[in-house]
Amino acid sequence: MYRNDGFRELERQECLRLLEQAAVGRIVHTREALPAVLPVNFLLEQDGAVLLRTSAASELVRAIDGAVVAFEADEFDAAAHSGWSVVVIGPASVVTDPAEHERLVRTGPRSWVRWPVEVFVRIKAELVTGRELAGGRTMYGMDLASRPVT
Amino acid sequence: MYRNDGFRELERQECLRLLEQAAVGRIVHTREALPAVLPVNFLLEQDGAVLLRTSAASELVRAIDGAVVAFEADEFDAAAHSGWSVVVIGPASVVTDPAEHERLVRTGPRSWVRWPVEVFVRIKAELVTGRELAGGRTMYGMDLASRPVT
Repeated sequence: MYRNDGFRELERQECLRLLEQAAVGRIVHTREALPAVLPVNFLLEQDGAVLLRTSAASELVRAIDGAVVAFEADEFDAAAHSGWSVVVIGPASVVTDPAEHERLVRTGPRSWVRWPVEVFVRIKAELVTGRELAGGRTMYGMDLASRPVT
Repeated sequence: MYRNDGFRELERQECLRLLEQAAVGRIVHTREALPAVLPVNFLLEQDGAVLLRTSAASELVRAIDGAVVAFEADEFDAAAHSGWSVVVIGPASVVTDPAEHERLVRTGPRSWVRWPVEVFVRIKAELVTGRELAGGRTMYGMDLASRPVT
C-alpha cells in the first residue's frame, strides 16, 4: 500500500470479499532476476490462501515453488475512474500430499487449458492489502467532484 | 513467456497494438525486498515506452525510479476462457527535463486523481512479450473443442 496516492485502504476482510469475485489474478514473482507477472485463474480458500492449478511441467511452477510471491487482482472502470485492487503476499508451494491433491482435483480451481499432468500451487495469505478508488474525482485539470476519495 | 502453458506467443507489434487498447496496467517491482504490484492508468508512446503520471510524493516513484520494472496489461473473458496478456520490461525513470515535462502536461496521460505536484515516469520497452489464449478449449475433464489453442 502506497501512501499519498488518493486511494482508500481496504481491510483484510474487504479484500477477501473482493478477491472472491475475481476470476483472474496475476502472480508477481522474479524470473532470472527480472520482475515477472503472469495472469492465472484461481480459487480463494477460506483463510485467504490463493489456489492455482497448472501444468506440472510449467516454468511458472519451477519459478515460484518455495518463493515468496505476490498475487494481485483488480477491477477498474476507466470511465468512472473507480475501482479496486487487492494484493496477497506469501510463500507459494506445490501441494505434494497425494490425498490433498486428490481432493483438490474434485474441489479445486478448474484449468482453462487441459494439461497432461497437473499440480496445485497454494499461495499463503500472510499479507493482504487492498485499495479502492471510489471515483467522483475527475481528470487532472478539471474541477474536483464533491465526493472525496479518502 | 512460459513454455508448456497452452498460450500462443505474440509478436512485439501485436503486443503494442493490444497495449494501446488498455486503459489500466500494473507496475511490477520490488518494495522492501518483496514483490510489489500496483495498477495505474498509462499512455503508450510510439516506441512502446509506457508513460505514467503520478504524485511526485508517491512511494511508487521512489521505489521504481532507476529500477528495472515490468508493466503488465491484460484482458480476459472468463466465460470463453480466452484473453491476452502483454508485459513490457525495462528501466523506469522520472522525466526530469523541464521542457519535456511541460510538453507531457499537455500531451501525456491524464491522472485519475489530482495531485499537488505531479511527475511523469517512463518505462522503456526493452523487452516486450505477450501471450494469447484463443479459447475453444473447455475446462479440465471435459472434451477438447475443435479449435486448437497452439
